[in-house]
Amino acid sequence: MAANLKSAVVLVSGGLDSATVLAIARAEGYRCIALSFDYGQRHRIELDAARQVAVQGGAVEQRVLTLPIGELGGSALTDRNIDVPAATDATGDDIPLTYVPARNTIFLAMALGLAETTGARDIFIGANAVDYSGYPDCRPAFIEAFERLANLATRAGVEGDGFRIHAPLIDLSKAEIIRRGTELGVDYALTSSCYNPAPDRAACGVCDSCTLRARGFQEAGIPDPTRYRA
Amino acid sequence: MAANLKSAVVLVSGGLDSATVLAIARAEGYRCIALSFDYGQRHRIELDAARQVAVQGGAVEQRVLTLPIGELGGSALTDRNIDVPAATDATGDDIPLTYVPARNTIFLAMALGLAETTGARDIFIGANAVDYSGYPDCRPAFIEAFERLANLATRAGVEGDGFRIHAPLIDLSKAEIIRRGTELGVDYALTSSCYNPAPDRAACGVCDSCTLRARGFQEAGIPDPTRYRA
Repeated sequence: MAANLKSAVVLVSGGLDSATVLAIARAEGYRCIALSFDYGQRHRIELDAARQVAVQGGAVEQRVLTLPIGELGGSALTDRNIDVPAATDATGDDIPLTYVPARNTIFLAMALGLAETTGARDIFIGANAVDYSGYPDCRPAFIEAFERLANLATRAGVEGDGFRIHAPLIDLSKAEIIRRGTELGVDYALTSSCYNPAPDRAACGVCDSCTLRARGFQEAGIPDPTRYRA
Repeated sequence: MAANLKSAVVLVSGGLDSATVLAIARAEGYRCIALSFDYGQRHRIELDAARQVAVQGGAVEQRVLTLPIGELGGSALTDRNIDVPAATDATGDDIPLTYVPARNTIFLAMALGLAETTGARDIFIGANAVDYSGYPDCRPAFIEAFERLANLATRAGVEGDGFRIHAPLIDLSKAEIIRRGTELGVDYALTSSCYNPAPDRAACGVCDSCTLRARGFQEAGIPDPTRYRA
């Protein structure tokens, strides 16, 4: 592979999807800056996973920024007064209780600021419209609207070549994501998807996210490395 | 005025523009939630001003959220390694050193999250394209692009009536803003505009922001209540 010095900011949550996205960005020759957020999520174990994923995935650097999303309230993932529901119909039309208000808008806005100051013009996000559990900010139209905004909002967008928002998983099923990542050498044992993990990181196996993940490994025909609670 | 229970989130920085916007939103009958950010700005005195402005302006509540924008680097307003420049040509074409990467994108993203969880569908921002000092995220096209994004990004945008982003100052000169606010009873003595205020809040009188403000009062024919350093 020829040397390619283009930098990219890659949103790395510690989950399966963003680990795959980091591997894809690396395979495309980007120098990757991993960006993770501490936002009062219940599944803070994700942050430990994000650190390991960034290292294993070959990011040149990882930034962890603290965001007060939990103070906005309104989501089972950050509000301790709302219970995380067990899996219902994870790909149904309803927007689930685990929806976090404006999350991807806020994450991409921070990524845009970091990209502008570090000279990166490419931002990678693991948004996925197939198994997206009804989150409106995981659809292609949202990604396109953010790219358009980014190029109106910034000095680099106005004066320079502009930003590209990459969502390489957007049309893939969970099984396709897992196959792609496995080809690229992603160690999914490091990743954490559960909304309700035990302190030792064991997954609950029953939340929406666990259900989608387990089904993905099954459909991909790849052994599931997830450690579930006994 | 008839009772109007519609809530709005109003970005209140403590400066002259946002104090005027709060007065406008109130005059239009909104129940206003003031939203301010602690983002490592040099001019933290703005935060004290924001509290006073929110109270004087009749906000029903004020939220102050801490954002790690300073950790992104790249601006004279948050990076202590870059000097704040004295006024050059404040309305020229160049984007100035005091530009903060992605600032209004990040602020509006947080406002969107708060609006969604509090049931507000209207967001007010004091962006201004006339005296905008070359910030790309103060132009009408940016505001329109954010409104479009907001209605793709959120449960309330997808399922409900959608969000409106109001930038009532966008086409006004500083003098027109000051006249409008004065009519509405804004106490500009409470506001702070200086990029480099003294610890006792006295303004420097020479930065871009001070220069625009002083010229605005002069052109409006209204006595300038700003206290300048001796």
